[in-house]
Amino acid sequence: MENLQELTTLLSPEALLTHWQGHRNVTRKVIEAFPENHFFSFNIGGMRPFSDLAMEIIDLTEHGVNGIVTGTYPDVHELPHAKGAEFMPKTKADFLKKWDEVSHQLNENWAQIPAEKFQEVNKSFGVYENKNIDSVFYFIDNEIHHRAQATVYLRALGVEPPMFWDRG
Amino acid sequence: MENLQELTTLLSPEALLTHWQGHRNVTRKVIEAFPENHFFSFNIGGMRPFSDLAMEIIDLTEHGVNGIVTGTYPDVHELPHAKGAEFMPKTKADFLKKWDEVSHQLNENWAQIPAEKFQEVNKSFGVYENKNIDSVFYFIDNEIHHRAQATVYLRALGVEPPMFWDRG
Repeated sequence: MENLQELTTLLSPEALLTHWQGHRNVTRKVIEAFPENHFFSFNIGGMRPFSDLAMEIIDLTEHGVNGIVTGTYPDVHELPHAKGAEFMPKTKADFLKKWDEVSHQLNENWAQIPAEKFQEVNKSFGVYENKNIDSVFYFIDNEIHHRAQATVYLRALGVEPPMFWDRG
Repeated sequence: MENLQELTTLLSPEALLTHWQGHRNVTRKVIEAFPENHFFSFNIGGMRPFSDLAMEIIDLTEHGVNGIVTGTYPDVHELPHAKGAEFMPKTKADFLKKWDEVSHQLNENWAQIPAEKFQEVNKSFGVYENKNIDSVFYFIDNEIHHRAQATVYLRALGVEPPMFWDRG
């Protein structure tokens, strides 16, 4: 029966975490690839610079998954990416430090989510009512989305972006 | 036991298909949002125009999932997106027609994949050795990635992109 269950389970929580951390490795490399000044200022078509987008990814990962564990969330307007540059790290090095702290925290929080909890409906950030599994996919997809936008910024700057498929 | 299994299953094949088709709805809207000429020519930093990227998404979805069902794949170099513009639809309308055919075919193919088959290791396109579930995530993530790049093209063209979260 356990064997059957394994066969019919599309994805385990462990596999999903590995998938996400693989994406986080790629995003970290995209942050690293930016020239320092352009990370905080370069944009196309009035979009936000990658520092703001990276902060959004950090905020959703940190507080979104912590919220699944604890059931409590900061107000969305209180998140650093929403409050503005003065509430974010000021250098790429500090961004990467925060990035690594959140990657570590993600592993710790994930271990505290029983598998059945992913099917529970929750009001993510007190606003977005979804199954927890769907919130997690939103956070991952949103990361892929904004990181991909940053790869266009890099191309426009003449920098070759890290490979999308290289998750190591 | 069935109830336990449902609780501990993170994601069903049906839920994953719904998730993918939701993303396909967004990508379709991004194709629609492009001015006709720019769809086939506009690019930033020497990247491919969105027509080429959209063709890649179409090719991977069509032949990638068909390959999971049948075990056979065309050579990657024989895919239209790899062969060049003369092998792709010539108008946005024809692209959208092909898009809808592939969305329909995806549903039909998906229904022929037994749940346990997602855990099998397969050489996708005869080249990429992965579990089928990981190939599917690659196809979806690759779609999110290239569509997000297209949203930067749209912003650069002064066009407001469709909302990322509006999957209807």
